Amino acid sequence: MLSHETACILNTNDVDAHVEIMIYFADREPTGPYRITVPPRRTVHQRFNDLQEPEPIPKATNYASTITSDVAIVVQHTRLDSRQSENALITTIAFAGDE
Amino acid sequence: MLSHETACILNTNDVDAHVEIMIYFADREPTGPYRITVPPRRTVHQRFNDLQEPEPIPKATNYASTITSDVAIVVQHTRLDSRQSENALITTIAFAGDE
Amino acid sequence: MLSHETACILNTNDVDAHVEIMIYFADREPTGPYRITVPPRRTVHQRFNDLQEPEPIPKATNYASTITSDVAIVVQHTRLDSRQSENALITTIAFAGDE
Amino acid sequence: MLSHETACILNTNDVDAHVEIMIYFADREPTGPYRITVPPRRTVHQRFNDLQEPEPIPKATNYASTITSDVAIVVQHTRLDSRQSENALITTIAFAGDE
Repeated sequence: MLSHETACILNTNDVDAHVEIMIYFADREPTGPYRITVPPRRTVHQRFNDLQEPEPIPKATNYASTITSDVAIVVQHTRLDSRQSENALITTIAFAGDE
Repeated sequence: MLSHETACILNTNDVDAHVEIMIYFADREPTGPYRITVPPRRTVHQRFNDLQEPEPIPKATNYASTITSDVAIVVQHTRLDSRQSENALITTIAFAGDE
Repeated sequence: MLSHETACILNTNDVDAHVEIMIYFADREPTGPYRITVPPRRTVHQRFNDLQEPEPIPKATNYASTITSDVAIVVQHTRLDSRQSENALITTIAFAGDE
Repeated sequence: MLSHETACILNTNDVDAHVEIMIYFADREPTGPYRITVPPRRTVHQRFNDLQEPEPIPKATNYASTITSDVAIVVQHTRLDSRQSENALITTIAFAGDE
C-alpha cells in the first residue's frame, strides 16, 4: 500500500479560507506553498499525493508540513502507510489575513 | 463493518450542558444543530448514527463536525471504520450561554 | 482481553505531585477522588484497574475521568480493549495548591 | 519487534533549534539532557535508541520524556512496540533562549 497523507480541512466561516501548505524535509529546502481554497461552511479532504504545484511531493521521503490560513480553520491530518496504523494529529492554525 | 462515529461528552459541572452538533460537508450546506443535553456530573456516549433531528446523517459521505456547549465540557471524538484503526481527537469547546 | 486503562503521569517538579482522579458515569454520581502521589522528577504508570479506594472502578461500564494535581504535571492516558486499537489522549491539568 | 520511539522535530525558523531531551523514570533520577541541533527549515527524525550521550536509554524500562528548545519547534512523538498500535502525541514546547 502506498503511503498517503490527507488533510481534512473544515471552514466554518462565512468566507473562503485561503490555505497554504508548506512541506519541510530533512536535507533540502522546503517546498511550497501549495494553495487550497475551502469555501464557506464546507470541508475539503486534500490528499497530499494530489498536490502538484509548485511540484509533486516526493513519495519515499520523510517530511513535515505546516498549514496556514487567512481565516480560522480546523485541520485533521491523517497519515496511512503499510507499517503503521493510523496516525492522527489535529492542528488549528490561523493568522490575520488581508481580507 | 459500518462506519460509526461517537462523541463521548463529559459534563463535570453542576448544571446541565446543552450541546449542539453541526455537521459540515464537502458539497452542500451544513446540517444541524443536533441537540443533546448532558446532565450534571455525567457522561454521554452519543453515536452519530443515532442523531435523527433535523435529519439523519448521511452514511457514505465525508463530513466534519463541530460541538458547542453552553458550559465547559470535554469531548472525546472517535471514529471507527472498516479500513482505518481508531482515530481519536479531543476537543474542548465552550462558549458563554444564557443560563 | 480485559479492557485496561492506564495514566502515565510525569512530575518534572522538585516537589511531590498530589494527584486526584475522578470517575464519571452515564447514570450515577461520580466516584473518587482516587489519590496518587508522584515523587519529584519521576513517572508513575497507574492502571485504573488497580485503583481500589474509595471503591474499585466498575469493569464493564463506560466512564470518563478527570485528573487534577496541585503542581503542573503531564498525563498520557491510554486505553486498550479487545475491539479498538490504542486510544491515546494527552491532558495537562494543573491548579494552584496549598504547598 | 523492539520498541522504538521517535521524535519528529520540525524547525520552521531561519536559525538553528538547539533541542534538549530529558528522560524521566519511575524509580531513579532523570537522565539527560540529550542534545540535538535541527537546522533552519528542516526536520529531524530522532530515534530514541540512537541517543547515546550522556548514556543509552534503557530498553526495557518505562520512561517519559520532555523536549525543550531555544526557538519554537513542532514535535511529533511516536512510539511503536509489539503490543500496541501506533501512539501519537504532539507537543510544542518552546522557551526563550540566549541567542
